[in-house]
Amino acid sequence: MDEIISLDYGSGGKKTARLIEKLILPRLDNPALRELGDGAIVDGGEKLVFSTDSFVVSPLFFPGGDIGKLSVCGTVNDLSMCGAEPKYLSCSFIIEEGFPFSELERIVESMAVQCEKAGVQIVTGDTKVVEKGRGDGIYINTAGIGVLRHPGLGPGNIRPGDKVLVSGFVGDHGTAVMLARNQMMQGEIASDCAALNGLTEAILSVAPGVRILRDPTRGGVATTLNEFVEGTALGIELEEARIPVRPQVQAACDMLGLDPLYCANEGKLLAVAAPEDADKVLAAMKNHELGTDAAIIGEVTERYPGKLTMRTAFGGSRVLQKLSGAQLPRIC
Amino acid sequence: MDEIISLDYGSGGKKTARLIEKLILPRLDNPALRELGDGAIVDGGEKLVFSTDSFVVSPLFFPGGDIGKLSVCGTVNDLSMCGAEPKYLSCSFIIEEGFPFSELERIVESMAVQCEKAGVQIVTGDTKVVEKGRGDGIYINTAGIGVLRHPGLGPGNIRPGDKVLVSGFVGDHGTAVMLARNQMMQGEIASDCAALNGLTEAILSVAPGVRILRDPTRGGVATTLNEFVEGTALGIELEEARIPVRPQVQAACDMLGLDPLYCANEGKLLAVAAPEDADKVLAAMKNHELGTDAAIIGEVTERYPGKLTMRTAFGGSRVLQKLSGAQLPRIC
Repeated sequence: MDEIISLDYGSGGKKTARLIEKLILPRLDNPALRELGDGAIVDGGEKLVFSTDSFVVSPLFFPGGDIGKLSVCGTVNDLSMCGAEPKYLSCSFIIEEGFPFSELERIVESMAVQCEKAGVQIVTGDTKVVEKGRGDGIYINTAGIGVLRHPGLGPGNIRPGDKVLVSGFVGDHGTAVMLARNQMMQGEIASDCAALNGLTEAILSVAPGVRILRDPTRGGVATTLNEFVEGTALGIELEEARIPVRPQVQAACDMLGLDPLYCANEGKLLAVAAPEDADKVLAAMKNHELGTDAAIIGEVTERYPGKLTMRTAFGGSRVLQKLSGAQLPRIC
Repeated sequence: MDEIISLDYGSGGKKTARLIEKLILPRLDNPALRELGDGAIVDGGEKLVFSTDSFVVSPLFFPGGDIGKLSVCGTVNDLSMCGAEPKYLSCSFIIEEGFPFSELERIVESMAVQCEKAGVQIVTGDTKVVEKGRGDGIYINTAGIGVLRHPGLGPGNIRPGDKVLVSGFVGDHGTAVMLARNQMMQGEIASDCAALNGLTEAILSVAPGVRILRDPTRGGVATTLNEFVEGTALGIELEEARIPVRPQVQAACDMLGLDPLYCANEGKLLAVAAPEDADKVLAAMKNHELGTDAAIIGEVTERYPGKLTMRTAFGGSRVLQKLSGAQLPRIC
C-alpha cells in the first residue's frame, strides 16, 4: 500500500476496495459491515433515534483525543441525550489527497477503541477523496441509530424550581483544542472527549423522570442552557461559584480571551431535574467515573422568562446570551 | 441574513440557528426534524437497512442535477438496492466559508424536491463551516434508514445461466459531470440522477426472486459487475452490442478518453435474474418511466470464474477489469 492517499483511493474501484480491506475492516469489522454493498441491515425496534454529525476539528490530534474518537463519541452522545441506547453507526470519510495512511490508521484505531467502549458498531461507510487544497486532512461524518429507551426527554418538561446539573468541569475540550491549535501550554489541558451513554443510563435508571439531558458541545454550557428556555415563560439562573471550571482552563481562557461557559465540551452533560430528583441525579453522576465532579449549578425560575442569567461570584447578576459568532471555529 | 456563509454560521450559536430556521427548515420541515435537538425519533421495524454517502461532486451544479439532488438520490438508491423501502435521511453540510447563500438555497430546494419525489424525509442534520481554502463550496453527507421489504438480495444468489439487465443508457452521469467540469459540449448530455426506489419496487413486485440489484455509481457498470463475481466460481459475459449507450455519450467519452462502462451512473440499476424471471424484470423496467431503455446485456457463466468479459461488436472477447485508478475523481 502507498504511504499517502491519492485521488485513486476515492475512485470506487480497486484502490478504494484495498483501502477498505486493508485499513478499515481489520479494525472495524462486524457481520453487518461485511454483509452488503452500500447498506447494512440492522435490527430495529419500536422507536428509534437517528442522529448525524460531521467532524471537522482542527488539529486532527489533540491532548485527550482525535477526530476519530470525537466522531464516535459525538454521535453516541447525541443519541444518548435523546434517551436512546446507541447501537449502530455509519462512518464516512472525506480525505484530502496526500493524507498519510499512518494518520488514517491512528484515527480508525481510535474509532475502533471508542466503539468497543461505547458498545456500538460501525455497520456501513463511505470514502471520498478530494484534491489537495480542497479539504484539510480528513473530515468524518458519523450517523447513528439508537433504540429509544426513555421517551419524553425535552425542554417542554422543565418546571419552575427544577435544578440544573452539570456532570463535571466545563470547557475542557474547547480549551484543549484551541491550545493545541496555537501550540500553547502543550499537554496541560486534555479534552474531556468521552462516550456518555453509560452515564445517561446511570442517571435515567435512578431518576426516570429527569426533564432533559443535553451535551453542551459547540456553543458550550451557556448556549445549550439558552436553548432550554428560549421562547418559553421560564428562565434559568446559574450560580457562578458552583460551576466547576479547572483553574488551568480558566487561566487558558483568560489568556485566549475566551469564556469557559461558551467553550465546547465533548464528555459532559447538562441535566434538568425536579427538586426531589436532583440529589439522586447528582449521586448517580458522582458514582460514575465520568461524573465524579458533577454539581448542581442553578435553578429554573419564572423571574426572567426566556433568559439565562448568572449570579456572579461578586454578588451581581448578568445575562448570558447564546453564542452569536464563532468563538471557536472547527472545534468538533 | 448575509449573502455569503461566514465561519460564524458553523458556531452552533445564534447564526447557526438562524441558518437552520430561515434557510433549511422552511423547505425540509417535518415533525421529526423539529422535535429534538440532536437526533430524531423515527419508527423502526423488524429489520432496517442503514446506509451513508458523502457527496463531493465538482462542479456542484451540472445538467440534470446538482449536489443536493445527488445526495438524496444516492442514499435512497443505496437503500433501495438492498431491498429496503427508504424512509428517513439525515443530512450534514460541510460548507466552505464564503459560499453564497443563494447556492445553498438552490441546493436545499433541490433536496426538498427529491425527498418529495422519493417519499423520504430528512429528519436530522448538522452544519459545519470550514475556512476558505479548506473545502470546495459544499460537501454533503446523507445517511438513510429504510425498512427491509425484500431480504436476501445479494451476489451469493447468482447462478449460471442467469441474465444480467441494465435499466437504461449507461455513463450519462459521469459524462455529464466531466463535460460540465471542462465546460465542453454544454448541455448536450444530462446526468441521469434519479431516485430508483419506485423502479426497484416495480421489479421486486413482479420478480421477488431477483438475485441482486445494484446501482453502478463510481466505477460504473464494469466495476459493479466485477464485484458480483470476484472471488466466486462464476463469471459474467456481456454483449457489447446490447449495452445501451447514447451516441453523444460515446462521442464525449471518445473525446475525453473515457469508457462509458466505467463512467458513473446515478439513475440506473443493474439486475441479475433467473432465466425464467428475466423477461418479467425487463417488462417491469420498460413499463417504468426510469426504465424505458432497459436491456438484457449479458449472462452469468461458468467459463471464466471471477471475471467479467465482453463479446465485442467485432466478434472478439475481452476482460473488463475493475476500475483501478480514479478515472473520474469527484463524480459524486
